[in-house]
Amino acid sequence: MSHQRIRIGMVGGGDGAFIGAVHRIASRIDDRFELVAGALSSNAQRALSSALNLGISPDRSYTTYQEMAEQEALREDGIQAVIIVTPNHMHYPVAACFLTHKIHVICDKPVTKDLKEAQALQKLVAESGVFFALTHNYTAYPMVRQAKHFVDTGILGDLRVIQVEYAQDWLTDKAEATDNKQAQWRTDPEKSGKAGCLGDIGTHAFNLACFISGQHVMSVASDLTAFVPGRRLDDNVHTMLRFGNGAKGMLWASQVAPGNENALKIRVYGELAGIEWCQESPNQLWLAKFGEPKQLITRAGHGSSPHLAALTRVPAGHPEGYLEGFANLYLEIADAIEAIQGGTSIYTAQGLIPSVDDGVEGMKFISAVLASSENNGAWCPLSPTETTSDE
Amino acid sequence: MSHQRIRIGMVGGGDGAFIGAVHRIASRIDDRFELVAGALSSNAQRALSSALNLGISPDRSYTTYQEMAEQEALREDGIQAVIIVTPNHMHYPVAACFLTHKIHVICDKPVTKDLKEAQALQKLVAESGVFFALTHNYTAYPMVRQAKHFVDTGILGDLRVIQVEYAQDWLTDKAEATDNKQAQWRTDPEKSGKAGCLGDIGTHAFNLACFISGQHVMSVASDLTAFVPGRRLDDNVHTMLRFGNGAKGMLWASQVAPGNENALKIRVYGELAGIEWCQESPNQLWLAKFGEPKQLITRAGHGSSPHLAALTRVPAGHPEGYLEGFANLYLEIADAIEAIQGGTSIYTAQGLIPSVDDGVEGMKFISAVLASSENNGAWCPLSPTETTSDE
Amino acid sequence: MSHQRIRIGMVGGGDGAFIGAVHRIASRIDDRFELVAGALSSNAQRALSSALNLGISPDRSYTTYQEMAEQEALREDGIQAVIIVTPNHMHYPVAACFLTHKIHVICDKPVTKDLKEAQALQKLVAESGVFFALTHNYTAYPMVRQAKHFVDTGILGDLRVIQVEYAQDWLTDKAEATDNKQAQWRTDPEKSGKAGCLGDIGTHAFNLACFISGQHVMSVASDLTAFVPGRRLDDNVHTMLRFGNGAKGMLWASQVAPGNENALKIRVYGELAGIEWCQESPNQLWLAKFGEPKQLITRAGHGSSPHLAALTRVPAGHPEGYLEGFANLYLEIADAIEAIQGGTSIYTAQGLIPSVDDGVEGMKFISAVLASSENNGAWCPLSPTETTSDE
Amino acid sequence: MSHQRIRIGMVGGGDGAFIGAVHRIASRIDDRFELVAGALSSNAQRALSSALNLGISPDRSYTTYQEMAEQEALREDGIQAVIIVTPNHMHYPVAACFLTHKIHVICDKPVTKDLKEAQALQKLVAESGVFFALTHNYTAYPMVRQAKHFVDTGILGDLRVIQVEYAQDWLTDKAEATDNKQAQWRTDPEKSGKAGCLGDIGTHAFNLACFISGQHVMSVASDLTAFVPGRRLDDNVHTMLRFGNGAKGMLWASQVAPGNENALKIRVYGELAGIEWCQESPNQLWLAKFGEPKQLITRAGHGSSPHLAALTRVPAGHPEGYLEGFANLYLEIADAIEAIQGGTSIYTAQGLIPSVDDGVEGMKFISAVLASSENNGAWCPLSPTETTSDE
Repeated sequence: MSHQRIRIGMVGGGDGAFIGAVHRIASRIDDRFELVAGALSSNAQRALSSALNLGISPDRSYTTYQEMAEQEALREDGIQAVIIVTPNHMHYPVAACFLTHKIHVICDKPVTKDLKEAQALQKLVAESGVFFALTHNYTAYPMVRQAKHFVDTGILGDLRVIQVEYAQDWLTDKAEATDNKQAQWRTDPEKSGKAGCLGDIGTHAFNLACFISGQHVMSVASDLTAFVPGRRLDDNVHTMLRFGNGAKGMLWASQVAPGNENALKIRVYGELAGIEWCQESPNQLWLAKFGEPKQLITRAGHGSSPHLAALTRVPAGHPEGYLEGFANLYLEIADAIEAIQGGTSIYTAQGLIPSVDDGVEGMKFISAVLASSENNGAWCPLSPTETTSDE
Repeated sequence: MSHQRIRIGMVGGGDGAFIGAVHRIASRIDDRFELVAGALSSNAQRALSSALNLGISPDRSYTTYQEMAEQEALREDGIQAVIIVTPNHMHYPVAACFLTHKIHVICDKPVTKDLKEAQALQKLVAESGVFFALTHNYTAYPMVRQAKHFVDTGILGDLRVIQVEYAQDWLTDKAEATDNKQAQWRTDPEKSGKAGCLGDIGTHAFNLACFISGQHVMSVASDLTAFVPGRRLDDNVHTMLRFGNGAKGMLWASQVAPGNENALKIRVYGELAGIEWCQESPNQLWLAKFGEPKQLITRAGHGSSPHLAALTRVPAGHPEGYLEGFANLYLEIADAIEAIQGGTSIYTAQGLIPSVDDGVEGMKFISAVLASSENNGAWCPLSPTETTSDE
Repeated sequence: MSHQRIRIGMVGGGDGAFIGAVHRIASRIDDRFELVAGALSSNAQRALSSALNLGISPDRSYTTYQEMAEQEALREDGIQAVIIVTPNHMHYPVAACFLTHKIHVICDKPVTKDLKEAQALQKLVAESGVFFALTHNYTAYPMVRQAKHFVDTGILGDLRVIQVEYAQDWLTDKAEATDNKQAQWRTDPEKSGKAGCLGDIGTHAFNLACFISGQHVMSVASDLTAFVPGRRLDDNVHTMLRFGNGAKGMLWASQVAPGNENALKIRVYGELAGIEWCQESPNQLWLAKFGEPKQLITRAGHGSSPHLAALTRVPAGHPEGYLEGFANLYLEIADAIEAIQGGTSIYTAQGLIPSVDDGVEGMKFISAVLASSENNGAWCPLSPTETTSDE
Repeated sequence: MSHQRIRIGMVGGGDGAFIGAVHRIASRIDDRFELVAGALSSNAQRALSSALNLGISPDRSYTTYQEMAEQEALREDGIQAVIIVTPNHMHYPVAACFLTHKIHVICDKPVTKDLKEAQALQKLVAESGVFFALTHNYTAYPMVRQAKHFVDTGILGDLRVIQVEYAQDWLTDKAEATDNKQAQWRTDPEKSGKAGCLGDIGTHAFNLACFISGQHVMSVASDLTAFVPGRRLDDNVHTMLRFGNGAKGMLWASQVAPGNENALKIRVYGELAGIEWCQESPNQLWLAKFGEPKQLITRAGHGSSPHLAALTRVPAGHPEGYLEGFANLYLEIADAIEAIQGGTSIYTAQGLIPSVDDGVEGMKFISAVLASSENNGAWCPLSPTETTSDE
């Protein structure tokens, strides 16, 4: 099938920025996008040299995102979508600007710097009629989709218990006291907001649990800790979860757990079956139907659903990884943008792609966990979904 | 080294009783005990036939435990110790009776049916000067001892996070509505007390966390659930933990998690290293020193401590299992009884063998979790250790 | 069910001998045997002190096996069976002696020191009408029986490929140049015969492949190596296998493979399914039906065959290990001896217990591998089964 | 660092061809190549539509590779390298044509259809002074490079035993009798030559063993089988290996092993240490130093060598897979072509990239295994390297 490449621009992601490079690779893998414009850095010189390194024409390398939005909106061959990979506090203004210019937005997580902004953005997106994708990339691993499919089709029956965790060890020492820039800004409340480990990886675990289970978290009882002396934000998250359907869960996120690299792991148990998936072995999914031997479902292998074939590129047993999972999101975003241009409604086109609503949900989770922890672990509800448009 | 076999009797454990058979095998593996007396059943005929099947002389098969204690105390070749494997509510009176007759006691867990009884028993043990062992068998797996050794010798540094869990699936369905006797009594508050899954396996997880870490749990914030409709006791335990040294943890126990058989698993993280152990692969222990590759320590293998050799029987790579772990406890009990007979103080002889104090601690944990859960998860302290003798 | 304990004696296995202790534990676990006599050492004083340590009456501690056979045969309460755990070269004369006195024989592997002796013993056993068990213990792991059951019941269809291996690392260095006695005799052709690693562990791998597959090896093409400079016997075995039904296989055994403890592993592939089992995780068996997801079958768990319940003692998820596997053999031996005493034919009673025929088969394998390797790997047939009675 | 994209063309790889798409993704991931020309199919219409789908300008879509070589060589902006992903028998003529036009060649494996052609190509490459890469992609997995690094730096000491295997199950049934085109041509001697499974995946295993060990295979003793009735080429390979330094090994390749997807696995043992790697978990490498606990080395993790950082894109714990391994090869090819254009000698630029010599070595291996198997497993030498230039 032939596709016209979608023209994209990028805000942030200049030379040396990690996540910008990941987005570019992910968007390139299936060759559905063409990067033609950028406001890659607030430093004009770095913006230009970064653009040249990426093969962007100098006249489409901008020094401000506002200029980029304006100019590109005027061009016949202007960008159709923008990728936002700036520091978190810039997500809202940049996204708002491009929404105004009717340019589709692909935004790295977290959606904004706090809940209030997220809800404001949610309103803007709804009013603009423009497509907005939040790159919660873990949701697009094929075996995560398989897990969701098992839940959705009733293989697990009514859900009861959801255990999710995301453990790392890179902040075991006081890395922010060294020249580790990642550690510096992620532990700095001025740059990261009030949530440390909670916002950085706890939200990934939260999002994954909601995505697979199809359930909302109604309330949390939480215990946040900063174990490293002098650290200003939490580096360990303990929280219990209550879901809308009566299921219960636990979420553990930690950046001080030696021996863990990116150990995002989820287990979901229902009245009929249980499943288990771990990001570090993403091509495998355990399925245990009660009363039967456990089955190991593999990406593209026997037992995996045929409708997921579109999200894999190589045969079973040839592992795909983090970048392919991320690329799956870009593949679906490309399909969505094409569909929207062909007249499909934005809501339909969004499909399983994480939306601004998921971003708002994540912000509510952060707020609730912070509130519960400050209130010595008392159960704290997530602010209700239905009232968000009024706030 | 030559040992005189220690003469033991058993209360409970007649034909068909599961845990009685386990104790007998465990005590037999290293040939340090000789079973010579029994009050194996409250049913006289079953008691006798069970005794005969076990090679116990008919004149030492008793119909009541009181008679057994009395008669055996009078014999020159009377039993030196008794194994108690009755239903839980009988642990206290039976133990009290044998303590009075100065016969050492080996008691299955839980120590008693509730905290009050446990504290009474604690007092009795202290006053009697008799040896009392509580068979928290998981503590005697060699790699659990190795884990404790790593903690004790500072390999992990100050502890920060302890994640422990014990998952099963056998109560996923309403098994108590069938003729499954195990399911019937374990879900019946009259027979099991107020704790279901919590008392049955949650206490094992709790005990293991305390044993390895050497820390006391100070308080808990808990959420108990009975997921199976109509079930009268909890079948899922979620609780957060705060330890005496400032470490924090989570404990999950469940009997409704399809795909889990006896998945008791613990992870302990300190400022210098982390460890991970799972009961279903008991011969392996992961050690991750921060900044180094993970190491897989194996029972009797390279990296395991020489002082643990006494607790293994076959070379590395030849797996030992549940019964050998249990047998290790009996081996240490035999040594303790010999030492006491040779004049060693009971306190010294107890060594790492779980004691009545551990039983009391477990009961406090159950009480606190129940209280917290009834109080919607508010943090509830474990009643302090130092005041127990006054209650 | 009530059983009379079977009276046994032991030849070899004095204080400090590893395998004698293993046999005693294995025979004790299910309490079906009583050790009442011994010729535990050729050194009279060590024999006696060993006997006393084991609770054997001094008058039944013998200094020669001949005396023991004679005396015990005369007693009304004489031993019903003997366990032979001497050095290999003594297996034949000791077994022959007890067979003559109509005392059942339980013999450690290898059956004899060479093929000629094995075939002579095979003849003696047939003529004597006495029960003979060879303790190829790996065959009695429940999941090995499960594997055999899958093959026997056609789950795999016609077999095609069998890959078996047994890797260790303890002879990576020249341990025989130290005071390591195990290393000394196992690398000494005078004490071990012409086969080193081949006889020590290669035969276990061979036996396991034949046991599970139900096939005979017809011929081998082999390459034996002594990698450690100055070593006098092979420490690595490479051999290709051709089976009677047309299946083909490879067998690798090594004692110089760093990182391997007792890595005995087998994979069997048929036209319909494949299975995989590893001794170091003995409670698990992989079953892969072609075109379906892989299943993990667990001991006593869902998917394991009910008829195997007799060979397990604790619930699924509580691991059993090497000693329980060994004990299974003793359990079946006890049943066999009881049955024989009740009139069952020896052939019927033997059931799946390895026999002298299996011992002969192993010796043929050793001979064939040695011959092939000496002939630069040319395919060498195992000497045919049907002619053994004429030799 | 800024790079000019290298202009490439592709021969073969039209719509629907699997391996062509893999090469395109792999070359795109790091954005070092630009696909600007193609002779994508011998069918003119399919060639054109495929080109358009890939964004190739119609005037650079050719119907014959000869025309493409000629025309592109004349253009100032002509391609600098060609990717050959045709059926195997076309590799030689296509490569020869582009070499003549001084266009660098990137050729999928196998290098040619037989040894004679391979040796002829080897001569052509040497004479042309043009760069030639053979895409043995498995060699570029970071943990394979790590394994080679451990060997090269003496961590393993002198090598002794190399066990390598590649198991699949997709030909368990007679798939070639269905409309499975992959199965049809891979089991057809007219299209695949005399080697089936041997040529398809056995050569990958062979190449990996040689790459990591740095050793040449001197001779083989082999047993090829076609297990599926009526199959015309081998579907299972058993072969023993003797290496130049005295090491020995076994290689098993199978396409009839149910439960195996792409189970390429290698274990290398030396006098000091052993290593183990499996393609299905490519981010992990086991290192076992004799006498120490096993270590789990992870891609980009603690214990992995810093010089490998260039071959990874995401942090430790975020898995990379098959496509990233393949992309590593393209990254090095890009560097090599740049270096050559900057004056570096082709030999130096080749670095660890598989060359035509590796292709020749693989062909010798196939020839020797076929010869040995036809000669009932007699050891057959690989034809010597030093004489190839004379043939």
